[in-house]
Amino acid sequence: MLAYDQGTEVMQQIAAAIQEGAAAFLGREYRVLAIFVAIVSAIILLFLSWQTALCFVAGSIASAGAGYLGMYVAVRANVRTATAARDGLHQGLRVAFGSGAIMGMSVVSFSLLGMSALYMLFRSDPNYLSYITGFGFGASSIALFARVGGGIYTKAADVGADLVGKVEQGIPEDDPRNPATIADNVGDNVGDVAGMGADLFESYSGSIIAAATLGATFGGDASPAFVGLPFLVASVGVISALFGIYMVMGHENSLPEAAETDFSQQPAPSVWLRVRTLFNAYFQRFVAKIDENASLEDLLNALRRSVWGASAVVLGLSLFAVLLSGVSINYWLVILVGLVAGNGIAYATEYYTSYTEKPTRGIANATRTGAATTIIQGLAVGMMSTVAPVLIVAVAILLSIWLGIMADGSITAGLYTVALAGVGMLSTLGVTLATDAYGPVADNAGGIAEMSHLPKEVRHRTDALDSLGNTTAATGKGFAIGSAVLTALALLAAFVTAAKIDSPSLLSPSMLPGILIGSMLPYLFSALTMMAVGKAAHDIVIEVRRQFAEIPGLMEGTGHPDYKACVGICTEAALREMIIPGALAVSVPLLVGFALGKEALAGLLIGTTSSGFLLAVMMANAGGAWDNAKKWIESGQFGGKGSEAHKAAVVGDTVGDPFKDTSGPSLNILIKLMSIVSLVFASAFGSGWFSF
Amino acid sequence: MLAYDQGTEVMQQIAAAIQEGAAAFLGREYRVLAIFVAIVSAIILLFLSWQTALCFVAGSIASAGAGYLGMYVAVRANVRTATAARDGLHQGLRVAFGSGAIMGMSVVSFSLLGMSALYMLFRSDPNYLSYITGFGFGASSIALFARVGGGIYTKAADVGADLVGKVEQGIPEDDPRNPATIADNVGDNVGDVAGMGADLFESYSGSIIAAATLGATFGGDASPAFVGLPFLVASVGVISALFGIYMVMGHENSLPEAAETDFSQQPAPSVWLRVRTLFNAYFQRFVAKIDENASLEDLLNALRRSVWGASAVVLGLSLFAVLLSGVSINYWLVILVGLVAGNGIAYATEYYTSYTEKPTRGIANATRTGAATTIIQGLAVGMMSTVAPVLIVAVAILLSIWLGIMADGSITAGLYTVALAGVGMLSTLGVTLATDAYGPVADNAGGIAEMSHLPKEVRHRTDALDSLGNTTAATGKGFAIGSAVLTALALLAAFVTAAKIDSPSLLSPSMLPGILIGSMLPYLFSALTMMAVGKAAHDIVIEVRRQFAEIPGLMEGTGHPDYKACVGICTEAALREMIIPGALAVSVPLLVGFALGKEALAGLLIGTTSSGFLLAVMMANAGGAWDNAKKWIESGQFGGKGSEAHKAAVVGDTVGDPFKDTSGPSLNILIKLMSIVSLVFASAFGSGWFSF
Repeated sequence: MLAYDQGTEVMQQIAAAIQEGAAAFLGREYRVLAIFVAIVSAIILLFLSWQTALCFVAGSIASAGAGYLGMYVAVRANVRTATAARDGLHQGLRVAFGSGAIMGMSVVSFSLLGMSALYMLFRSDPNYLSYITGFGFGASSIALFARVGGGIYTKAADVGADLVGKVEQGIPEDDPRNPATIADNVGDNVGDVAGMGADLFESYSGSIIAAATLGATFGGDASPAFVGLPFLVASVGVISALFGIYMVMGHENSLPEAAETDFSQQPAPSVWLRVRTLFNAYFQRFVAKIDENASLEDLLNALRRSVWGASAVVLGLSLFAVLLSGVSINYWLVILVGLVAGNGIAYATEYYTSYTEKPTRGIANATRTGAATTIIQGLAVGMMSTVAPVLIVAVAILLSIWLGIMADGSITAGLYTVALAGVGMLSTLGVTLATDAYGPVADNAGGIAEMSHLPKEVRHRTDALDSLGNTTAATGKGFAIGSAVLTALALLAAFVTAAKIDSPSLLSPSMLPGILIGSMLPYLFSALTMMAVGKAAHDIVIEVRRQFAEIPGLMEGTGHPDYKACVGICTEAALREMIIPGALAVSVPLLVGFALGKEALAGLLIGTTSSGFLLAVMMANAGGAWDNAKKWIESGQFGGKGSEAHKAAVVGDTVGDPFKDTSGPSLNILIKLMSIVSLVFASAFGSGWFSF
Repeated sequence: MLAYDQGTEVMQQIAAAIQEGAAAFLGREYRVLAIFVAIVSAIILLFLSWQTALCFVAGSIASAGAGYLGMYVAVRANVRTATAARDGLHQGLRVAFGSGAIMGMSVVSFSLLGMSALYMLFRSDPNYLSYITGFGFGASSIALFARVGGGIYTKAADVGADLVGKVEQGIPEDDPRNPATIADNVGDNVGDVAGMGADLFESYSGSIIAAATLGATFGGDASPAFVGLPFLVASVGVISALFGIYMVMGHENSLPEAAETDFSQQPAPSVWLRVRTLFNAYFQRFVAKIDENASLEDLLNALRRSVWGASAVVLGLSLFAVLLSGVSINYWLVILVGLVAGNGIAYATEYYTSYTEKPTRGIANATRTGAATTIIQGLAVGMMSTVAPVLIVAVAILLSIWLGIMADGSITAGLYTVALAGVGMLSTLGVTLATDAYGPVADNAGGIAEMSHLPKEVRHRTDALDSLGNTTAATGKGFAIGSAVLTALALLAAFVTAAKIDSPSLLSPSMLPGILIGSMLPYLFSALTMMAVGKAAHDIVIEVRRQFAEIPGLMEGTGHPDYKACVGICTEAALREMIIPGALAVSVPLLVGFALGKEALAGLLIGTTSSGFLLAVMMANAGGAWDNAKKWIESGQFGGKGSEAHKAAVVGDTVGDPFKDTSGPSLNILIKLMSIVSLVFASAFGSGWFSF
């Protein structure tokens, strides 16, 4: 992919600035992270064991490595996507999707390889599973920085750039004269590529760890099979994801000539080439055919088919895995339940946020009576949109537990299946994450195409790719939340088992306070992250105003804006503003666990998970629906751009920005991080200082 | 109070129209209610017993009666308050507060008398406590209609009147030419007097029932003392409330001459008069002294002192009650905990919604950058404001349970104390409700003074009384939510005991799905009520537009608007739009209880209570803060009325309207109604159709 042409000089300049900004952010973030990881490792060493500390460091490095690779590719794929779009729509899609695929495959392979290596290292130790929870904790720590810090970064840059650029100076979005433009583009990558990747790395690792931990506690002699099953399913998932990616990318023969020539110049075809040729000859029929006039629906179908194709493969292969493990076929059905639930949530999200459907059109209709009704309608749609995901997750849990109890008779088997359903839901992550991480690359490509005045037909193509990215971004968020909830519940079950809570009774003295406080934390966390965006955006506004006032000729295009200053401010602000919410997420479970005891902590976790689930879905979907309601009006409805209705829609969209890109997704991290912290320290909690 | 002068003819006309509209709404509502009560009674007869059905009917009648009386007085006190304000500030305060006191005292006395009568009737039956739960269910049913229906009514009228009157026709608020004005004024009474009264009637009855039910299950021979204690505490609460009311109202000598003369003309002073004279001679020192220049702070202090005075009296008297009952002194401390928690929540609410404090000023500051930042900041403040109430309730529960377990050693004693803390919090309800129900009367009085062009100094006084009402309305909402949560938790504990759930384990198969679905219901309920306001307001807009178009001379003041048509539309819309949310609240617990079993139902209840608590506080406080941020700007900040900042503040206020007056308060009903339905049907639930 990197071999692809980078286009004109202007394009390369813009791309270089984005690459530099992203590198600056990651470099700064990783330095802070290194300190954080060192401190937490010391605490783990002190209270737990060196093995857990080592796993914690390994988890951090694996997640950070996957994030770095994903970002490295994404900020280089954007300009190449714009160039490739000159050759055709499918060429552009392939470059952007290919960079997403690299992110997706790094996440799943780094996670699996990391955990497998640690398993090899510690397998002779009876406590090896409790050590490996450290890996999940490490992944969660990176996710905290990447998702919360990244979320603050991206929206501070976006809102700050718009407030001065669009509102005060009257220049269009993505205008290179705006000093905050590059920060805005960097933000898309920081939030949606690195943030989303770290979020799902955490879910992926967490669900496998939870399943393995629970698998070890029941089944007697069959325990090793139960421990191994999630790893097996995840492994066949990697193969299936590769197939799903192939369904979009096709084989090398359709790549540009340079790549093709390399192989054909070899004097005698190697065995590998022969196998590949055979494979292509048979499976080529599954590769998406995208012609120049492909509609949004066609493009969407190409991506959908790749996810479904991967799901079919994972189901087939995991049937073998289950049969080989010698466990009940019910466990295979659980994987099916997880996969169907994940796709169901994605579908429900699409329904509530797409402007072809009733809910978003209702918001668009409400813009005609002003901003207030737009906000009320959007919040109502967001609240209404929680019903389907909650019912889907609830039914998935019920079915999984039922299947587990049928197979094994014990409630622990039932809880094991909840974790296994999470593994099933995430088994095709390599390809589902590719469709998500594709979005910001296409978005950036569109921006670069605009800024460097590429020909009209190229911009048509990048626009089509960008619209596709908006849709996959919304469904990706739904999928991320759903998998986060299933992972958090699985981790909670693992915690209850690991902490040896005999009967976590709803009416034990400290359970009710625990649940109430737990339900409150997502509200506190969201309030903090929303206010953080406001403060950081304010800093950007001051800096952009200063540059417009002090740099001569900036407005006329003769002066050069200081992009780096804005990137620096966003970086500093993001890292500063995430300290309090981050500290809360790590310290509250420890505080409650030690002070009120492990039962209160179980209550806290269930409260945070359920309340956070609801709030996250509400915010993500309201934000997505406002965004698309605005887009629908911009397509010419209710007076189009510049009308009173459009102004009201812009208010909705601006409120939705921190909803869907900062506070909402940050809650995924909150619920998983609190669960994994509790699981890691499970053995250290007692019945609390105020025990009765 | 009714003896007071009703003022000029114009004032009387306006007042008569409001009275007529309120009577029309109540008449229509009670007809629908009668059908509802008949159907539910039949179901109870079929599944449970005739005794429970009788109690259900009694609870409905008692609550409806208290609501009717409160409304009857309130819609007559408004015009008299305006007239009394001609004589002085204290005179005006006394009439308005007096009408609130009638509401408050009707609520507590009707509830206590009703339950006592039923106790006398059924006390020989060993199941008498389970019958009396029917009384709470009846009260909840009325609350559903009064709070949810009333909430939809009041905001539909308000938003509808503003959209056409203020925005389209450019006439001021409360202008008699606007056909929806009377509906708007009726709505204030319907929502804030009858709705609030029924809401707290439900909490009051529910907390006593829950405490008595739990009291019967432990303590062996001492059980009767535990059953009787909540009734005793409530009874001494009635006395203390009377004293609190006295502290604001003073004695008859300060009433207008007519009243004074009546007594002095008697030839020989009766014993009653002598006692009263002695009482007054001693206690007069506690009566608030309010002079003409009293600031908002002075007025607020007068009301605060009356609540504190009543609290002091209830603490003193309930110490006797506890000692007489022969139970541990710890139970008295629990009552103290409840009282302190109630006042703590009210204080926290005031902090977050008053424009003298930082949070609301932060929202006002955000109006300078437009409507979007106003909304974001308001939502963030609303979310942040959940922290204190949740911590207060959590600590109150922990302390109560700890005191109970210390006293008796059993966990049931611990849960009993949670209910008893609720009884303590609500013990002074007679006077706290007086300060709440005072608000809409003062608001209406201000409107009438404006509309009938009373002299300037009178309007200054009604303005002062109105501002006071706005503050007490916000704190009243906080108190209503806090008490609703404590009541719901107490009812949940009673349900778990009554349903004989041995160990409601967090990890029993159907508990997690129950909690998730329960957490979702407040979101669904809020979405439905918010959309209902939108639809009903739309109906009003159409009707008001029609009248302006079709009635000749309406705009010029020569034609007469058809107030009744708007009142009728609001009434119909309110009753129609509450069917789905109301049916949900009653049917979901039954459905979950029968289908998934009683453990899932316990999970459902805890999910709904915690999630509903958070959402209700967030909505009520965000709404209150937006309202006051607008008022602060109107007092001249950031450009005052008509500025861009003010326009943004109006958007915030409009979004806040259904938040604080419809959806937020409706959640109080949802959480209590679901708990009481579960408790009433507790014996009928099994382990579910899908039991494992």
